[in-house]
Amino acid sequence: MTDISARLSGPVRVVGAGLLGASVGLGLRARGVDVLLADASPAHLRLAADYGAGRLDDGGAEPSLIVVAVPPDLTGTVVADELAAHPDAVVTDVASVKVAPLSELQAAGVDLARYVGGHPLAGRERGGPSSARADLFIGRPWVVAARPENPRAAVSLVEALILDLGATPVEMDAAEHDAAVALVSHAPQLVSSLMAKRLADSPDAALALAGQGVRDVTRIAASEPELWVQILGANAPAIVEILRAYRDDLDRVLVALGDVDAAGARRTIAEEIAGGNIGVSRLPGKHGQDRKYSRFVVMVEDRPGELARLLHELGDLGVNMEDLRLEHSPGAAFGLADIAVLPEVLHRTVEDLTERGWRITG
Amino acid sequence: MTDISARLSGPVRVVGAGLLGASVGLGLRARGVDVLLADASPAHLRLAADYGAGRLDDGGAEPSLIVVAVPPDLTGTVVADELAAHPDAVVTDVASVKVAPLSELQAAGVDLARYVGGHPLAGRERGGPSSARADLFIGRPWVVAARPENPRAAVSLVEALILDLGATPVEMDAAEHDAAVALVSHAPQLVSSLMAKRLADSPDAALALAGQGVRDVTRIAASEPELWVQILGANAPAIVEILRAYRDDLDRVLVALGDVDAAGARRTIAEEIAGGNIGVSRLPGKHGQDRKYSRFVVMVEDRPGELARLLHELGDLGVNMEDLRLEHSPGAAFGLADIAVLPEVLHRTVEDLTERGWRITG
Repeated sequence: MTDISARLSGPVRVVGAGLLGASVGLGLRARGVDVLLADASPAHLRLAADYGAGRLDDGGAEPSLIVVAVPPDLTGTVVADELAAHPDAVVTDVASVKVAPLSELQAAGVDLARYVGGHPLAGRERGGPSSARADLFIGRPWVVAARPENPRAAVSLVEALILDLGATPVEMDAAEHDAAVALVSHAPQLVSSLMAKRLADSPDAALALAGQGVRDVTRIAASEPELWVQILGANAPAIVEILRAYRDDLDRVLVALGDVDAAGARRTIAEEIAGGNIGVSRLPGKHGQDRKYSRFVVMVEDRPGELARLLHELGDLGVNMEDLRLEHSPGAAFGLADIAVLPEVLHRTVEDLTERGWRITG
Repeated sequence: MTDISARLSGPVRVVGAGLLGASVGLGLRARGVDVLLADASPAHLRLAADYGAGRLDDGGAEPSLIVVAVPPDLTGTVVADELAAHPDAVVTDVASVKVAPLSELQAAGVDLARYVGGHPLAGRERGGPSSARADLFIGRPWVVAARPENPRAAVSLVEALILDLGATPVEMDAAEHDAAVALVSHAPQLVSSLMAKRLADSPDAALALAGQGVRDVTRIAASEPELWVQILGANAPAIVEILRAYRDDLDRVLVALGDVDAAGARRTIAEEIAGGNIGVSRLPGKHGQDRKYSRFVVMVEDRPGELARLLHELGDLGVNMEDLRLEHSPGAAFGLADIAVLPEVLHRTVEDLTERGWRITG
């Protein structure tokens, strides 16, 4: 791991002490970096300082690096202000869209040599400083939207920050980034929300039949509307491009389902589902491989320690579990553990577990 | 648990020795019931018999109960044949659509007093007899589409079968059933497949940013096209009704995203996402409750036994884990365990785990 301290002549200033900003502060403090905090809300600011994310910026020290962690629609303005106020600092941000703030800055005629946009793909996008974690970014990709006008030293300072926080820098320009997150985050969010909305006024009896499939499809539909309106609004053109193509496919399916016995109708449906097969198979798996695993389902009594016992026995059997999903049967006194292993050990694992008294249900 | 044996004067005949049929056979054999197997494919039939799902039907014994477990488009015909060939038997089926086979039988003028349709909501809908499990149905809802013309004894025999196999009978008429599965299974399948199809020709760099959200939304897009064309085709009207409403919402979002600064545009987007919030919150949770849990994420080194150690320590701390999801960071030497607990124990659990050296990343 790199050590950002060696590259810094002054402190790191974090503007915006929400989940992301406070987590950056905590992560840097854990590595001994001096962190100055700023936030428009004095309450947020003091809370983040209380949690150890840094100290209040009294203006006594000139920062070397500034991390702007404010909502996407404020990012452009705040970046411009920070560049002007700290003429020697490198400025980065963590906004989940990159084109809109950049265009705003370019339109305002700001010199952007010292601005290197960034976006950590960290799980949660909500919560205040009290949800912050020093380890929030560990193992996550963190996009660095470097531009030709950025001096290499500015880019590598931002990359050192990212590496220090345990994340993986991924270089990508602003337009590529926005198209990518539209595809892997924003469009799936809308697709999930719109499907979940169909459940809103459905009969309880129908919902009682819900299995893991609809639960997975709609899980992210629990996201906060206010935040997502901002994210989606800031990346609208890229999202519209994907959703228009999606709607064209949906229309084809609707026509086919409207008359399933028409020539070509079943083929259309099969092609759409086969297209989905190809798409989902392209998502990188564990360790970035595309390796396919075999799955089986074990019944686990719903009492503390049972799942741990199952996993211990898998360990005893020398089986490395590649993935685990827990399903609950509403009303039942047990859960179902859906476990993925390498195909070559599936048969033996299922036999050994059965011998040890576990019930394999799928 | 009930005992179906006491109600049977003859064996149970299972027609169709695929995953579902062979699993019914295995489950009944485990309870000592005499099971006769039939399948159009002699290879399937012998394989299912080899796995212990029953014996080949030599016509020597008249069945009391017949379970038709053939593909949906054959179900009507096979049910009619079985009713005719075995004039004293109760006939049920396991097809995932209920209106189409029933309409076909009604149109053919078949007396349907002895036919009680059924549908087990068992996780997997694919695989041959070699994937069959005696415990496949444990804890799953199993719809019983009883009709007024069914004698109560016929319905209760089918319910005894369901209870014996460990599933929960849910009475629902054919139209209600088809509308319900269109909502919680068929529409989500298409929504997922169409989203996954968007990933099919996208750049690798974009896919490298994929997080758990898009993975969940597209997981079921790995389903078999052939089977799904049949299921979707057989339930087209109910699916079309849901997807048309879905498309209307999608069109509203597309208009709003096309001009996000127009009056009302952001409100439209917020309303769609808020509608999704309501819908997803209605899905029954663990134990059928709607109780909300608090989640946290723990870093788990990617070596055998680490996850078991974490779960053991949670047990030591007296914490009951309500849900567990495992995420992998591509390329990283660890996974992230996303754990749900009751809100009142969240703070203490996170503190205790941190004290024991676990890294909490979210």
